Amino acid sequence: MKTTRRLLLAAALALATLTAASVPSAVHAQVVDPLPSWNDGATKQAIRDFVQATTDRQSPDFVPPGQRIATFDQDGTLWVEQPMYSQVIYCLDRVPDLVKEKPELKDVEPFKTVLSGDKQAIAKLPWKELEKILIATLSGMSVDEFQDQVKQWLAKARDPRWKRPYTELIYQPMLEVMRFLRDKDYKTYIVTGGGQDFVRVYADRVYGVPTEQVVGTMGGTKFGYDQNGKPFLTKEPTLLLNDDKAGKPEGIHLMIGMQPYAAFGNSTGDQQMLEYTKSGDGKRLSMLVMHDDAAREYAYGPATGLPETKVGTFTQALFDEAKKDDWIVISMKKDWKRIFAFEE
Amino acid sequence: MKTTRRLLLAAALALATLTAASVPSAVHAQVVDPLPSWNDGATKQAIRDFVQATTDRQSPDFVPPGQRIATFDQDGTLWVEQPMYSQVIYCLDRVPDLVKEKPELKDVEPFKTVLSGDKQAIAKLPWKELEKILIATLSGMSVDEFQDQVKQWLAKARDPRWKRPYTELIYQPMLEVMRFLRDKDYKTYIVTGGGQDFVRVYADRVYGVPTEQVVGTMGGTKFGYDQNGKPFLTKEPTLLLNDDKAGKPEGIHLMIGMQPYAAFGNSTGDQQMLEYTKSGDGKRLSMLVMHDDAAREYAYGPATGLPETKVGTFTQALFDEAKKDDWIVISMKKDWKRIFAFEE
Repeated sequence: MKTTRRLLLAAALALATLTAASVPSAVHAQVVDPLPSWNDGATKQAIRDFVQATTDRQSPDFVPPGQRIATFDQDGTLWVEQPMYSQVIYCLDRVPDLVKEKPELKDVEPFKTVLSGDKQAIAKLPWKELEKILIATLSGMSVDEFQDQVKQWLAKARDPRWKRPYTELIYQPMLEVMRFLRDKDYKTYIVTGGGQDFVRVYADRVYGVPTEQVVGTMGGTKFGYDQNGKPFLTKEPTLLLNDDKAGKPEGIHLMIGMQPYAAFGNSTGDQQMLEYTKSGDGKRLSMLVMHDDAAREYAYGPATGLPETKVGTFTQALFDEAKKDDWIVISMKKDWKRIFAFEE
Repeated sequence: MKTTRRLLLAAALALATLTAASVPSAVHAQVVDPLPSWNDGATKQAIRDFVQATTDRQSPDFVPPGQRIATFDQDGTLWVEQPMYSQVIYCLDRVPDLVKEKPELKDVEPFKTVLSGDKQAIAKLPWKELEKILIATLSGMSVDEFQDQVKQWLAKARDPRWKRPYTELIYQPMLEVMRFLRDKDYKTYIVTGGGQDFVRVYADRVYGVPTEQVVGTMGGTKFGYDQNGKPFLTKEPTLLLNDDKAGKPEGIHLMIGMQPYAAFGNSTGDQQMLEYTKSGDGKRLSMLVMHDDAAREYAYGPATGLPETKVGTFTQALFDEAKKDDWIVISMKKDWKRIFAFEE
């Protein structure tokens, strides 16, 4: 089945390439569905309409290629964020190696609790304590060392539910949106509250997003020389920009310098980015992924009737703003034919 | 003469396009000189050799397109920096309008001195005082207002020597290097001590460098809403990164996340960027523009025998490091056939 589909796709693509020059684009577009993991309906159509309106030269909403910017939150928008952000798990997992390097931390909180392996106690650590772990595991090493540490973790870590590498817990429908936009000369950026250097390690391989298009929470680095006089950068414990909430449009300005035409998020952390995007002239697209599929992924947020979560907070107020300001809420349950590439 | 040259160039380009698929690239390269404003010689050849070595699939130093990063300092490397950085002139020129908006500054130093028009007194202002003018004219307004202010200034301001817009004082040979690299799938970045938002206003039009490829000194912005609830960003007086000296590799890591393969500078402010570039594996290119042509532009720096300047400091130590570490020093006098596009 998989092979058949691939062959059909290849044939369709070849046909599309051969005929693209001679047939109208509407006919061409019907040949290959750019969003095969999306159920037909208003949500999928809204994405296609937006792309059509902003990339067709005849459209009043045509956007020149250099201005075609689309921004994607990561946690809960591109990959699974429950029960805890993957980067926080990374930081907790790093603690034993950290204590090997710095044995004096063994009896110091919060490192002591993390080393104990007591999951309930770890889950109860207040944010202030967790922050100490983040700083200790995300700074103090060279940029190259950090990249190696993250790569090693990604290769061996498995999530608790699907027992798969975290980088396989990517939403296939969102990958299709990214590819569809890139095929239409959009530049796709990740704009995440996660660490910029962390996400850069796998963004190209996993999302097709090169390092210079990853906008995240930014820490400072310090230029220096090793004992052979060779320059290198050390990750510092200084925060340049917290790329969350109001920090997202601020980070977009800093890194891109242009307002996006399309933005995708899933929580109150994305609110300002979606407002900023939607407030621009012409046709803009602001979308929110709603986690309402406990069977295939997780259910949380206002539409589920379940209590709000601290991870990926989606309040009723955000839901109301989305309805009022013509943002589109994506129902994972109704709009997505499949969620992960590994599903059959 | 100009028309003839353009026709010849067009014919050569057409020929190159027609035959590119069927002739070896060495022959193709001879058809059109990508660096017509450079005199033949070792410097020009070094640039061509670098491009050949890093973009030819058969070369041991081949670099995949996604990693082809080239960074260019601006002041003194891409455009004239004497007698004073253009952005500082912008800030001084803004003072009268600023005082109109804030009359209380009229009798306050250093604004009072700037308003006096006394050029000698203005030139004597210490850096601490100048900084107050920079902060007052580069922050406090919305990002859109700032862009409008810079655009208006660029349209009317003229430099004191050539009586031309500052954006015409661009070194034609360097524009050719940028285009040559881009034609070979290099991404060209500006990495400047100047303000990131300032340079972005004209970088695309003047250098063909889009806003997201301008790395400069970065100030913070603050997200907020106007009286109609529309989001906008205000330029804040906070410094996120001083993109000079060690700040250049730090800014490159922040904005690009990869080490450049080629870097171009002209002063001690570029030293760390050139070191960082040259220290990477494989073939790398670090170049320094030396201002040794008082007749056609300016002469300053160690090779001229003139005293060092505060603007664009090129010390003997930097010159020695260049020689030792195999950086290439560009002599404007010997290597450049013409300096500006407006020359006949």
